Amino acid sequence: MTRQRILVLAATVFNQKGFAGTALSDLMEATGLEKGGIYRHFESKQALAEAAFDHAWKIAMDVRFEGTETEANAVDGLRLLVRNFRERRPELVPGGCPLLNTATEADDGNPGLREKAVGALNYWLDRLKPVIEIGKERGEIRADVDSAKLATLIVSTLEGGLMVSLLQRNNAAVGVACDHLEEYLEAEVRAK
Amino acid sequence: MTRQRILVLAATVFNQKGFAGTALSDLMEATGLEKGGIYRHFESKQALAEAAFDHAWKIAMDVRFEGTETEANAVDGLRLLVRNFRERRPELVPGGCPLLNTATEADDGNPGLREKAVGALNYWLDRLKPVIEIGKERGEIRADVDSAKLATLIVSTLEGGLMVSLLQRNNAAVGVACDHLEEYLEAEVRAK
Repeated sequence: MTRQRILVLAATVFNQKGFAGTALSDLMEATGLEKGGIYRHFESKQALAEAAFDHAWKIAMDVRFEGTETEANAVDGLRLLVRNFRERRPELVPGGCPLLNTATEADDGNPGLREKAVGALNYWLDRLKPVIEIGKERGEIRADVDSAKLATLIVSTLEGGLMVSLLQRNNAAVGVACDHLEEYLEAEVRAK
Repeated sequence: MTRQRILVLAATVFNQKGFAGTALSDLMEATGLEKGGIYRHFESKQALAEAAFDHAWKIAMDVRFEGTETEANAVDGLRLLVRNFRERRPELVPGGCPLLNTATEADDGNPGLREKAVGALNYWLDRLKPVIEIGKERGEIRADVDSAKLATLIVSTLEGGLMVSLLQRNNAAVGVACDHLEEYLEAEVRAK
């Protein structure tokens, strides 16, 4: 079994059970490998978890940004990101958003995973900000919009809606959050 | 040591480390008790964690709702909830919002804690909705506002902002989320 295949299988386990909740036996069961087979490729559970997070996050970012940066209008690009977030959750690694799953667990006890989650958040924000800045330069987005604050608001609202939806086991809260963002983008962000 | 004192000390440990991340040795260290001293009062780690969650959530709800239901105007009450969320975080059990901390960890592996988190979310939403309904009856809130959706949006936006702030270790994202909600409450919720 290749390193990449172990990573893919382990990513689902970590994303569903969390780092502390994942036992070596879970990883052995998911991969069908003995301990030595896993640790031939990864020096520790921590190293495997960090690589698995990177894998899961790359998929989330690819899915959520798909098509957004080639939209002719920046506001339409932001709205597409919101729709991708809402409609394409089945394409993520099973277990939900890796950032949401990792943010709280890593906060107090796992500096390596915390660094991964902070990097993932910054990647998302740093990829959103230029979309907004270019929209301002082109006159598609109001000049008084603060790109850092708008990027933060979009990420916060989406992730918060997802948290509520995970608890309610339905899509209602993600829908409320996404509808709200799309209306806000039209009413307060799009240049008139 | 009383049951209540064990609960208070354990709540901080669970809120910071999560359920899976909390070892019996952590609970012994926090309480200064031996295993038998803890389990005289709680039949299991699970039972202690569930009771500790209830304790932490009661504090969060008391702090966040304080004064909101006696505001003369419902919109002012909702804005006060937003401000309480933002400004009174130091009064919570250390480790952040118990709901955010528990929601993702409990989602895939701990039905007892998941039920606690779902109950906590529902309590919050069910306490917000009548504030909004009464505001509509009194003509303070626009008649076309959906109380369930507005309650969901408020909770989602606050919790999402908090998640980003936890990662960034500063208050910026909570500030962005709270400013946004206060502006939205004035612009789209308050009856004109």
